[in-house]
Amino acid sequence: MIKQTATLLISCPDQRGLVAKFANFIYANGGNIIDADQHTDFEAGLFLTRIEWLLEGFNLPKDLIGQAFNAIAQPLGATWELHFSDTVPRIAIWVSRQDHCLFDLIWRHKAKEFHAEISLIISNHPHLQEVAAQFGIEYHHIPITKDNKLEQEIKQLELLRQYNIDLVVLAKYMQIVSANFIQHFPQIINIHHSFLPAFIGANPYHRAFERGVKIIGATAHYATADLDCGPIIEQDVVRVSHRDNVDDLIRKGKDLERVVLARAVRSHLQNRVLVYGNKTVVFE
Amino acid sequence: MIKQTATLLISCPDQRGLVAKFANFIYANGGNIIDADQHTDFEAGLFLTRIEWLLEGFNLPKDLIGQAFNAIAQPLGATWELHFSDTVPRIAIWVSRQDHCLFDLIWRHKAKEFHAEISLIISNHPHLQEVAAQFGIEYHHIPITKDNKLEQEIKQLELLRQYNIDLVVLAKYMQIVSANFIQHFPQIINIHHSFLPAFIGANPYHRAFERGVKIIGATAHYATADLDCGPIIEQDVVRVSHRDNVDDLIRKGKDLERVVLARAVRSHLQNRVLVYGNKTVVFE
Amino acid sequence: MIKQTATLLISCPDQRGLVAKFANFIYANGGNIIDADQHTDFEAGLFLTRIEWLLEGFNLPKDLIGQAFNAIAQPLGATWELHFSDTVPRIAIWVSRQDHCLFDLIWRHKAKEFHAEISLIISNHPHLQEVAAQFGIEYHHIPITKDNKLEQEIKQLELLRQYNIDLVVLAKYMQIVSANFIQHFPQIINIHHSFLPAFIGANPYHRAFERGVKIIGATAHYATADLDCGPIIEQDVVRVSHRDNVDDLIRKGKDLERVVLARAVRSHLQNRVLVYGNKTVVFE
Amino acid sequence: MIKQTATLLISCPDQRGLVAKFANFIYANGGNIIDADQHTDFEAGLFLTRIEWLLEGFNLPKDLIGQAFNAIAQPLGATWELHFSDTVPRIAIWVSRQDHCLFDLIWRHKAKEFHAEISLIISNHPHLQEVAAQFGIEYHHIPITKDNKLEQEIKQLELLRQYNIDLVVLAKYMQIVSANFIQHFPQIINIHHSFLPAFIGANPYHRAFERGVKIIGATAHYATADLDCGPIIEQDVVRVSHRDNVDDLIRKGKDLERVVLARAVRSHLQNRVLVYGNKTVVFE
Repeated sequence: MIKQTATLLISCPDQRGLVAKFANFIYANGGNIIDADQHTDFEAGLFLTRIEWLLEGFNLPKDLIGQAFNAIAQPLGATWELHFSDTVPRIAIWVSRQDHCLFDLIWRHKAKEFHAEISLIISNHPHLQEVAAQFGIEYHHIPITKDNKLEQEIKQLELLRQYNIDLVVLAKYMQIVSANFIQHFPQIINIHHSFLPAFIGANPYHRAFERGVKIIGATAHYATADLDCGPIIEQDVVRVSHRDNVDDLIRKGKDLERVVLARAVRSHLQNRVLVYGNKTVVFE
Repeated sequence: MIKQTATLLISCPDQRGLVAKFANFIYANGGNIIDADQHTDFEAGLFLTRIEWLLEGFNLPKDLIGQAFNAIAQPLGATWELHFSDTVPRIAIWVSRQDHCLFDLIWRHKAKEFHAEISLIISNHPHLQEVAAQFGIEYHHIPITKDNKLEQEIKQLELLRQYNIDLVVLAKYMQIVSANFIQHFPQIINIHHSFLPAFIGANPYHRAFERGVKIIGATAHYATADLDCGPIIEQDVVRVSHRDNVDDLIRKGKDLERVVLARAVRSHLQNRVLVYGNKTVVFE
Repeated sequence: MIKQTATLLISCPDQRGLVAKFANFIYANGGNIIDADQHTDFEAGLFLTRIEWLLEGFNLPKDLIGQAFNAIAQPLGATWELHFSDTVPRIAIWVSRQDHCLFDLIWRHKAKEFHAEISLIISNHPHLQEVAAQFGIEYHHIPITKDNKLEQEIKQLELLRQYNIDLVVLAKYMQIVSANFIQHFPQIINIHHSFLPAFIGANPYHRAFERGVKIIGATAHYATADLDCGPIIEQDVVRVSHRDNVDDLIRKGKDLERVVLARAVRSHLQNRVLVYGNKTVVFE
Repeated sequence: MIKQTATLLISCPDQRGLVAKFANFIYANGGNIIDADQHTDFEAGLFLTRIEWLLEGFNLPKDLIGQAFNAIAQPLGATWELHFSDTVPRIAIWVSRQDHCLFDLIWRHKAKEFHAEISLIISNHPHLQEVAAQFGIEYHHIPITKDNKLEQEIKQLELLRQYNIDLVVLAKYMQIVSANFIQHFPQIINIHHSFLPAFIGANPYHRAFERGVKIIGATAHYATADLDCGPIIEQDVVRVSHRDNVDDLIRKGKDLERVVLARAVRSHLQNRVLVYGNKTVVFE
């Protein structure tokens, strides 16, 4: 049986005694820390930590932990998130016409790589309806045009609310999500098919081919109002040569996109990603 | 004993029979091909090839090979270069204050990784004079300011001429070489400390740190009038994390810069790099 | 429309004029070479080449090409294979209980990465019957025990004959195929879940964990009578750390196994793999 | 100015409250933790941690810290090491005829990548005497034969004692150090020129070539009585192909050996490596 845990993600102005204070909070209440990691950004004067402990034997009931921890966090000026492993996050996968990331995410979900439910697929095209049906996942076709984008985004937001979605995964959605949308629903992971910040925007593989690069990449990042400029969670690369034409770059890139997106989603779902400024700390 | 070879690098509008015609030229004159590679860029309609053969037993004297081959090449509209392995190219290494690429190039030269002579070191600083002395290489200190750049470049060109230099290696020279200079001496390999086209220009490691990338890179390319935009010869990358500050990126980057520059210089010296458009074919 | 091609894979004692002779054969018959690559193993005195040319405009009918080429090849002592791009090879995928390689191969087939038909799935377990059904592929459950192996292999061979199978892909089959079987059907690609020759045999991930390696790998190779010792086609690796337990190695390894197997199968299907001795040349 | 720190490396049977107890020890004495990392091996029931804190403002004098910490450690059954950043470890580099690792270590030392002094070079050959002289490092030529090994090792041990050596780096020493020697001086890092456990023992590049691997590697590990079987600190790999002959593998391998050895030495010198069983935790 998998044991239930609680996880704190904390950002705090750096000062003496932080590790002791946070660890004491867990220990004093009978908790057993199974994973702790920390990072100090000395330039920013910021202490960032992730602490995970067993709920078994912990004296505080789950619904009082946050309040109790806040009594310690507030005087220190800390901001924090608290997550419980028995809460299963709900994902909406957004796709366009390409199926490789969708297939991959579904397969990984079946293989229990993700602690989550895939509750919903949203697409601006009908093409992957069949894949959704094959695996018994709800599919909503919401076509986007220049003219209807605003109202369609309202529909999308309504769906996310209706399905209690915690995380949107843009699995090659190929559409720009508006700043307004992101403000209403900021938990969005996007996969961009280049080694950002190279080739921001459209057709990165074509531009990589034009430039004659010897390596191509993929980048998973949180979506922000600035296109392809959000905090990077994960990147990886693969070597290419003059023998690879644009189709080869696209083919090789798909393998990258699949693993890079999957690693980012998995890290996020394990509450291992802490955003600060426009960067991430990924506690491994 | 290492056997002497001749190498042809050929670019030619694609057409039927090219491989046969080029191979027949070698065979008819008694040559034995020891390495041949080709690439067809179907979009550009261009056939690119590298052919290396043993001079032993070849019926044509060295000084007639070019003329004889041209009789075949001209009707096909081909452009070509002919190189002989018993010609030892002469390199000038240009440095600034950092010594890692210089040390590395010198060590590889001693280890016989490069078929070349390091004839000259040019620097805008006096710092590495001692290293040059240690290994018995001429060192010319040519300080560059905004005001004297033009005249100093004339001095540099004069030195290259005087030393019969075939290749300039910008081994962290940290100065922009003018378009005019490049026009007069186009055989220049530069190492840029980023994964181009990301972070063109100054301070790429600082900007990589700011952006929070998870991988950094280095790029060796031929210098052209457009800063950091010349044909890429080689790139490589290394993984970084939130734990790495700018100094760590610089340290890890040095290891990349050394090997990427060395691989590019070696490929160039082996006449394995064929530039077409703004790209390279690197025959391996 | 994709143009039809013929491909020759040739092994030949090294001698003067081989490139010219082979290229002339194509050119004299009106063929246009679109890809040619070669390798000389000087120690073995062996010349190995792959030549692909357009059938359009080629004067020899397909069924006479082999005979005509043999007239050139025989005096040179060459051995050769001839393949046509309009022949679609037929694959049998052999699996056990794990589905990741199977899913991946099927997805790539749908994505047109493989020039082949997946005609048959054979398994010693019934577990993946459903996957086969989902994608409309025949599934044969042939349980293997110590006692029935010999007769079951006869059944398997019979199935391969019946379905005209050209290539068997052991996609985590987890059983040793007998030397006798391989003698009757030698075209077998296996994926081994380690960086061979490290961790030959059973439980490589457990043994990698025990040994405390910092990198794990996967290897695709042709199956031979010696377990995990056949010619290697492709390998790749991924970094691991003390944080990764055996389950993590298995999870990370699956991503490797998928791409390494897929690259090997693709190279084989494109007739890019030439076996000589116990090694391969993979023409890229 | 670089601030002085103390570092604890602790191994301890896993139990509730360890993080709190260790952090409280630092905090109660006025210390500021700047880096802390931990790992729990659940199978082994072992908690492993590295804690580094500023000595400035710490109330305990340096020579009392160990004793004070032991009062906490002993009841928990912990074993521990205490290191101070103002103690500069002394290294002896052992070489044979190859200079690439030696040059690299010396260059990195000059570049301040290592917090250490290179006090001594020992070799079974006279070849690199000149390099030592060039950089002003003591060089002891101690030739080893089958017959004199025992007595020569006694001389070597005597030298290590005389120079107060803390760490021996076998930088391509190419000799087996006896179990007896290792028992007397266990702090030895070796670079092996293969991706261990593949190609244990002699001539790994030749054997890699014979086997036809597509990737080669290098491994830095602590030397133990079992040849090439000690705890692995760092590994890395590079891709090779059929075009690479043994000399190419050796050349490419040198680049690997240099960085892999350097990373391992650096991690060791920063007290980031904790050995347990036959494995390492490398706190990054």
